[in-house]
Amino acid sequence: MSQFNFLAPVSKEMKIVESRLDKYVQSDLAMLNEAAGHLIGAGGKRLRPGFALLAAKIYQDDLENIIPLAIALELVHMATLVHDDVIDNSMVRRGTDTVKLAWGNRVSIYAGNFIFARAMSIIADYEDVEIIDILADTSMKICQGEIIQMLSCYNVNLGLKNYLRRIERKTALLISVSCQLGAILAKAPENEIKALTRYGYYLGMGFQITDDILDFVADEQTLGKPTGSDIRQGVITLPALYALNHSVYKDELRQLLASPEACDREADKIIEMIIDSDGIDYSYWLARHYAGKAKKQLDMIPEHPVKNTLLEITDYILERDY
Amino acid sequence: MSQFNFLAPVSKEMKIVESRLDKYVQSDLAMLNEAAGHLIGAGGKRLRPGFALLAAKIYQDDLENIIPLAIALELVHMATLVHDDVIDNSMVRRGTDTVKLAWGNRVSIYAGNFIFARAMSIIADYEDVEIIDILADTSMKICQGEIIQMLSCYNVNLGLKNYLRRIERKTALLISVSCQLGAILAKAPENEIKALTRYGYYLGMGFQITDDILDFVADEQTLGKPTGSDIRQGVITLPALYALNHSVYKDELRQLLASPEACDREADKIIEMIIDSDGIDYSYWLARHYAGKAKKQLDMIPEHPVKNTLLEITDYILERDY
Repeated sequence: MSQFNFLAPVSKEMKIVESRLDKYVQSDLAMLNEAAGHLIGAGGKRLRPGFALLAAKIYQDDLENIIPLAIALELVHMATLVHDDVIDNSMVRRGTDTVKLAWGNRVSIYAGNFIFARAMSIIADYEDVEIIDILADTSMKICQGEIIQMLSCYNVNLGLKNYLRRIERKTALLISVSCQLGAILAKAPENEIKALTRYGYYLGMGFQITDDILDFVADEQTLGKPTGSDIRQGVITLPALYALNHSVYKDELRQLLASPEACDREADKIIEMIIDSDGIDYSYWLARHYAGKAKKQLDMIPEHPVKNTLLEITDYILERDY
Repeated sequence: MSQFNFLAPVSKEMKIVESRLDKYVQSDLAMLNEAAGHLIGAGGKRLRPGFALLAAKIYQDDLENIIPLAIALELVHMATLVHDDVIDNSMVRRGTDTVKLAWGNRVSIYAGNFIFARAMSIIADYEDVEIIDILADTSMKICQGEIIQMLSCYNVNLGLKNYLRRIERKTALLISVSCQLGAILAKAPENEIKALTRYGYYLGMGFQITDDILDFVADEQTLGKPTGSDIRQGVITLPALYALNHSVYKDELRQLLASPEACDREADKIIEMIIDSDGIDYSYWLARHYAGKAKKQLDMIPEHPVKNTLLEITDYILERDY
């Protein structure tokens, strides 16, 4: 199922995005180019450019005017990634070469700022205040989400609402805005812009939930990071949240998940307890629920090959590698 | 001389800026409000809002439309300050409560991003692409400057050009842009916008040089931080640069300034060597040179009480507390 290339309808434009991404972050500072180039070279699914292009493709064939938007969206996403890269607690605790780490931190911070400012300058060229406003507003909400996520670590007293707010800020908003801005620039009718905005939102919610499931059940190779990274960092995602409320071990789980040391040392045990509860099934059910809501939004989109692609994506996110 | 209130012609508007600054960074996240509120409460000279308002005042009496710009400029400045706040090497080395430090870092990073995005959304409301473009471009250059400054620490092989580039990015650019955008919004004639832009640039250069002098000669109370902070952090400013080339102790100085340990432990000795050279006098001469260039730009500005204020400022920066 991972062979499904949902970006096929915009593959030509995606190649252009890829080739221009690097150019857009070049400056006369070698260290900045290196940091930014490394980020771009690391690849990624380029979901946000993809959704902007797909949404626009329904309304216009030539996507040249969407490409700068697509690049800016990926840069906003990258700016948040590079800031996430900044030294985390466990790295400080392990206490490797601190000077090098601290310098690395500063480069990460400045590179992130630079990339974000670059995204804003690309967007400014559209001379469309609505677009700048939407992107600036979304960026503020993403920052809030990062703080919420940080404050929620190891907190076993938070509920579903907190989780949904976190994944909305972390993933759903920017995918939603990608669809929205693609549709706005392609001059889609007002109600269809709204439908595509909601499509992106629900799809993003479902996508993040399946991402959170994969962190429990996929292997390291598929994930590109160790299984259970969330648990190890105290990030309580939906399967853990369900287990905290329904597992037969819920009292023990509460104690374990509230302790940074236990999360680090007994991650495997915690993961087993969560998988033993119906946390994965429940999460899968909620992801399917969001995918269904996303699909529903497409009812009011006119027939078009890309509409079928968008429909297929809603199934695809449920059938990722697990 | 520190009694000179050069913001008197715009004092009414500065009060409005001050009262709205806090409101603009409010969100529904207590931790973010606390971090941002702390920054705003810490005060500061509010130079950037001041210059935007002064530049506009020459061309229009009612400055209501300049106030959001003034606030956005201060927010951009604050975003860079909060990121500078992020853990530095010496803090890591001292190794206090690392978890708390690392969390503090993340809050600083996200608060900085939030404040910067807020500035962009305020600016977007002007519906003027030129203004957004100028501010985004300046922000990118400031980021580059921060990386240059970081890379230049403890590097005794860099010359005047590197120093001037650093202070341009650190201070002169945003003061220049403050004058420029104030004048643009007040619909000043093209050549007068250019003159005020250059005025801000040269003034900012002179201001940063006197700031760098003060770090050697002012007392802790005046500075609000220990004398010699730059030296302790390996930041080689103009007086040190001069001494590196002209002091009778220049060979010893080279060795000391290239060593993080020496800069930390023997800061007082280094400072004495630099003061013993003519580094302070030379720096003062260069600051006066820039102040003169700033003053010259005002030749083409029409007679106006605020023009006299701007002229007085060029003298004032040379007569700060030393």
